[in-house]
Amino acid sequence: MSVQEQPSLTMDLNEAAAESIGLSDARIADIIAALHEGYAQDLSGLIASLSTSETVDLIQKIGTDDRKVLLDEFTDFFDPDVFSELDPDLRRDTLSEMEAHKVARIVSDLDSDDALDLILNLDPIFQKEILRKLSAKDRVTLEEGLTFPEDSAGRLMQREFVAIPKFWTVGKTIDYLRAAAEDLPDDFRDIIIIDPAYHVSGELPLDRLVKSKRSEKIENITLDTTHTVPAAMDQEEVAMIFRREGLSTAPVIDENERLIGVITIDDVIDVIDEEAAEDILKLAGVEGGDLYRAVLSTTTSRFKWLFVNLITAIVASLVIAMFDATIEQLVALAVLMPIVASMGGNAGTQALTVAVRALATKEVSETNMFRIIWKETLVGTLNGVGFAIIMGLIAALWFSSPLLGFVIGAAMILNLICAGLFGAGIPIFLNRIGADPALASTVFLTTVTDVVGFFGFLGLAALFLV
Amino acid sequence: MSVQEQPSLTMDLNEAAAESIGLSDARIADIIAALHEGYAQDLSGLIASLSTSETVDLIQKIGTDDRKVLLDEFTDFFDPDVFSELDPDLRRDTLSEMEAHKVARIVSDLDSDDALDLILNLDPIFQKEILRKLSAKDRVTLEEGLTFPEDSAGRLMQREFVAIPKFWTVGKTIDYLRAAAEDLPDDFRDIIIIDPAYHVSGELPLDRLVKSKRSEKIENITLDTTHTVPAAMDQEEVAMIFRREGLSTAPVIDENERLIGVITIDDVIDVIDEEAAEDILKLAGVEGGDLYRAVLSTTTSRFKWLFVNLITAIVASLVIAMFDATIEQLVALAVLMPIVASMGGNAGTQALTVAVRALATKEVSETNMFRIIWKETLVGTLNGVGFAIIMGLIAALWFSSPLLGFVIGAAMILNLICAGLFGAGIPIFLNRIGADPALASTVFLTTVTDVVGFFGFLGLAALFLV
Repeated sequence: MSVQEQPSLTMDLNEAAAESIGLSDARIADIIAALHEGYAQDLSGLIASLSTSETVDLIQKIGTDDRKVLLDEFTDFFDPDVFSELDPDLRRDTLSEMEAHKVARIVSDLDSDDALDLILNLDPIFQKEILRKLSAKDRVTLEEGLTFPEDSAGRLMQREFVAIPKFWTVGKTIDYLRAAAEDLPDDFRDIIIIDPAYHVSGELPLDRLVKSKRSEKIENITLDTTHTVPAAMDQEEVAMIFRREGLSTAPVIDENERLIGVITIDDVIDVIDEEAAEDILKLAGVEGGDLYRAVLSTTTSRFKWLFVNLITAIVASLVIAMFDATIEQLVALAVLMPIVASMGGNAGTQALTVAVRALATKEVSETNMFRIIWKETLVGTLNGVGFAIIMGLIAALWFSSPLLGFVIGAAMILNLICAGLFGAGIPIFLNRIGADPALASTVFLTTVTDVVGFFGFLGLAALFLV
Repeated sequence: MSVQEQPSLTMDLNEAAAESIGLSDARIADIIAALHEGYAQDLSGLIASLSTSETVDLIQKIGTDDRKVLLDEFTDFFDPDVFSELDPDLRRDTLSEMEAHKVARIVSDLDSDDALDLILNLDPIFQKEILRKLSAKDRVTLEEGLTFPEDSAGRLMQREFVAIPKFWTVGKTIDYLRAAAEDLPDDFRDIIIIDPAYHVSGELPLDRLVKSKRSEKIENITLDTTHTVPAAMDQEEVAMIFRREGLSTAPVIDENERLIGVITIDDVIDVIDEEAAEDILKLAGVEGGDLYRAVLSTTTSRFKWLFVNLITAIVASLVIAMFDATIEQLVALAVLMPIVASMGGNAGTQALTVAVRALATKEVSETNMFRIIWKETLVGTLNGVGFAIIMGLIAALWFSSPLLGFVIGAAMILNLICAGLFGAGIPIFLNRIGADPALASTVFLTTVTDVVGFFGFLGLAALFLV
């Protein structure tokens, strides 16, 4: 159900609108029921009536067995775009089980960027088999695309674009567009202005074209601050340029500065989404979006990260073990010590997340990095003092020992200072040495806040209490 | 330095390109030096030569004192767009210190959506003062905008759009656009097709217009599957529709289904960015992007979250305190217990992050929610068994007690099963009851994995070991 079919449009429509996004559970249930009863006739009609995004919803949301039946029997009813919008893991699994000539038919129906994306993660042998079944033109385009580095502008761009010389007039341009209509890309927003050597000299948004008189020279209405993108540029940088400069199209150039494709804003939205998802998942130690991965493959990918964390936890235990005699004398220490470590971990994660996010949006550089670390350290110190007072009072009353309250308070301040300092400092440092701050920061930070938390608290206790 | 000014464009240009994004630290240092030495003349030229995004970089990255001088003395040299692209916290602080007539001048130079965004978070009294200084037309537009709910389509849309009736021809449309060029929005990609009552009947992308003959009827080339958006719809839903349907423009309609504005894809990119940032920050307990907030205000906003976590940690301590006699007899328990709790916390966070992300992208619904929770529980169980063996062996060897190894192994399995079950289950449950899964899930999850971890391990130890 699309939004404009809502029976009435009142201000409290928010929820109904939210419900209307995507295929409803009721309709999915109907389709599954039909699938189980084998009403192939009804189903093909039902499936053909779904929009691309609804079909994607259906495939992604149903169970593995139903999905297999659906894909085996109804692939021919799916729009090729369905496959390019499917979750990457699920797409790879699905295509891998299809015959090469069927995949080739899907590939040849897609724009060059989507086609490349589709075959990218397939098994190299299967990939070659598919390429062999394509037209020579499609094959060459895709093979060229595969030569660009992963996640580069070259992989992201589409080869279909509209380019004209700057000495044309508005009238000549419109006449050309009308005459060539059949051969032009399905959907374009800007015309690229080039010289005879295919060097980009500017960009012409279509609204400028239609607002101008036929006699107007193209060069007079062209935007000359074009942001060209080298094919090797990382897609994250491309997204950043689009965001910063508010672009809708960017021409992509090769090593000789010749125009070879364009990147459009809808490709960039996918990148922004992907990168944002990556950061949030990496911070938690999850590889890619593994929502549709099989249980075993998910388990092994998660295992690695948990194993690294186990080592961290054992290091923390070794610190505790240093003070086993102290704990034996005063078991209250064992009761209270997780509080100090946990508060440090949480305060550190706050600082770390802000820093990782600021690094991702390029808001951190030499100019302000020490200022950011300093600020987080101050915030940690102030919250440390606050929680030292609260937790100090609680501990003093709970175990009737003012000295114990003093010890936990002092440990809390120490650990929250470290949390701020290292929470902001670790990702910034990792970024400086070229490592991925989202991936490794959490492990290092936890080690710091656990070790400082346990060592600080138990060490001070050993000094003052026993 | 923009990308196309790179001296050479080779395949290993990635890094240089990355460096070239934004204002370089060296140039910022030059500007700060000039600022300190009071070379106002040089500076005004230097600042006027910066692009909008470079100016934003400059303002955001320099220290508070330098920023104050820069803003006090050079505001008039800034493009109005600089203010609309500034970090929201920083923008509010900056504008609040300016005189109302200056802010009014900036507001009147912006598109209606950016203007609204600018005055939105200002003090209501100051806001009214600014509105009074605007032209009647601008004031009415903004006052109407303020009546829409926060984060709604009505706040996001711009009032400037191009709309024509469907019975026109391509020729008449182009003639109209040429004649009205001065009054049209600066930048538009689609024309909205309306009936005399301002009801939307379709959308015409400009490339379809320029590809068609002058005699062609508009209704023959119009896309009739227009996705209209009610003004009250939440911006997150709007972004979802743009993503799912691959839109570049969506008409916004009022309660009477009349066209009142358009939302364009560049507004949506901001929303996607914002929402992605929000989720990652919320999971860590950080309010908004507080990178540019003052230390005290950051401290108090972080304090709240840490306080909730303190209560969680105290609950976990109460569980430990139940077993103080057991720990007194076997201090190895105190050494090992944080490992069980920490592994549960980390495994749970993995499941939780995947679920929060899937909820944000609407990939979870009734159809598959139990399947997702079940899968995460299975993954937790399998990893639980793996780490039970590893940690069981380590503990048995470390403390020469096979029984201790068995106890920690059993507790590990129990806690990782709960981690999977609750890690996926808590956010999905919170979402069902209408709560924000990103905001509250972590606290609940930590409570579960801490309590189960400590209770399971110490409880089993009390049963079997002492």
